[in-house]
Amino acid sequence: MIPEVALSKEEQAYALLKADADKILQLIKVQIDNLTMPQCPLYEEVLDTQMFGLSREIDFAVRLHLIREEDGKALLENLERQLNVLHEASQKA
Amino acid sequence: MIPEVALSKEEQAYALLKADADKILQLIKVQIDNLTMPQCPLYEEVLDTQMFGLSREIDFAVRLHLIREEDGKALLENLERQLNVLHEASQKA
Repeated sequence: MIPEVALSKEEQAYALLKADADKILQLIKVQIDNLTMPQCPLYEEVLDTQMFGLSREIDFAVRLHLIREEDGKALLENLERQLNVLHEASQKA
Repeated sequence: MIPEVALSKEEQAYALLKADADKILQLIKVQIDNLTMPQCPLYEEVLDTQMFGLSREIDFAVRLHLIREEDGKALLENLERQLNVLHEASQKA
């Protein structure tokens, strides 16, 4: 939960987006840990859908000037990087 | 374009979401006018993706307390109603 007092709308927006990105990472970790094949089309679809949802949230926050465009981009890129690391580790396992 | 001066973040958020909903309606209108079959799986997929994206934006705005949950729900329901009208009209044509 995000404490509402003392946080500006901008800080709240970023914290929410960051939490959503972490949730996607967590979801993919669980899928990999449970040995769902990363080559499985369903895995790809879940990931695509989640990434699309997050990118729409980020785009919305940028258009509302709640976060800077570069911060939104960095958030997505950082998530993609972490997902790649996870994915590569699972391939070697 | 939404004028930034004189509008609160809450008003801007609602205006953006309303504009996004209208964009989906417009997209579906164009598809129907161009006689793309509403039974086509691609049509369904485009619509599903767009509705999912909008629902994520609305959910984000609600969690940020930028719009009320009932207003977000009404926005989506209103769009669905308008899409149904369009869809039914295209079936009769």
